[in-house]
Amino acid sequence: MDYKQHITIVEDWPKEGIKFKDITTLMDNGPAFKSAIDDIVEYAKQQNVDVIVGPEARGFIVGCPVAYALGVGFAPVRKEGKLPRDTIKVEYGLEYGTDALTIHKDAIKPGQRVLFTDDLLATGGTVEATLDLVEQLGGEVVGCAFLIELSYLNGREKLKDYDILTLMEY
Amino acid sequence: MDYKQHITIVEDWPKEGIKFKDITTLMDNGPAFKSAIDDIVEYAKQQNVDVIVGPEARGFIVGCPVAYALGVGFAPVRKEGKLPRDTIKVEYGLEYGTDALTIHKDAIKPGQRVLFTDDLLATGGTVEATLDLVEQLGGEVVGCAFLIELSYLNGREKLKDYDILTLMEY
Repeated sequence: MDYKQHITIVEDWPKEGIKFKDITTLMDNGPAFKSAIDDIVEYAKQQNVDVIVGPEARGFIVGCPVAYALGVGFAPVRKEGKLPRDTIKVEYGLEYGTDALTIHKDAIKPGQRVLFTDDLLATGGTVEATLDLVEQLGGEVVGCAFLIELSYLNGREKLKDYDILTLMEY
Repeated sequence: MDYKQHITIVEDWPKEGIKFKDITTLMDNGPAFKSAIDDIVEYAKQQNVDVIVGPEARGFIVGCPVAYALGVGFAPVRKEGKLPRDTIKVEYGLEYGTDALTIHKDAIKPGQRVLFTDDLLATGGTVEATLDLVEQLGGEVVGCAFLIELSYLNGREKLKDYDILTLMEY
């Protein structure tokens, strides 16, 4: 399926000069959303995945249906202070300053084969931080799946040790 | 399935005296997560649903797999400033002050049969605000589905004009 026809390009959002790739018009189209998730499910089966991990909030949009379709668990990665039990934390750089992501200590079991999911591969900062958490818990990252890749931002550089699936490229 | 065995009760979180119902241990169990979503899918089929709506971030965890399973769209409801195109907004009261939720103007088409999804029915404030948005856009709310209901908070009172499914009650 040509998924790009379902993406809306929003000019100058969130700031001037940015052409934002809005996935909500893809999600709003039942058959297109289903087909995109099915493509990732197919990939997850090939990679023999035990558990899906995804950062809030758009990582949930992609990862939870994939986990459901496979009948495997989903481990949420959230901003600090959002997860109620014992967590580990990683800090990562933003354009200005840093942010932190957390995961429950029991979310991934040692040796589990983990698929990372998110809507967008941009600079790869969030992905790299999340994979760090997964590996601290002993998980084996067997793939990273995204709806969209912004290839001019070179996120793949940060992820060159990992297998990657993206459904659209800009 | 007895879903409560997969819920973790976290004492004194997010503040003293609260017994937080943590759904991440349900999500982390593939068969339990799949079964819970399937129960909501079954309900959605009975209600003849056209589109799923859910508030960030935990509404995505429940609603996106349901939308995927049915092959219908998912309309995200988000905090102000998170959705990139034309939105409508509703303000709602919190314990102290107010918060605002937004939805894209084109997320729901007039006459569509809408299922609201979230993890938890507590006081019903978020639900009521979201249903207001849906109805402003001309959607018909045909059901509200939650994993958990905190019945002592009387959220059902606010929703007495709507059909409700909850999988667990505390």
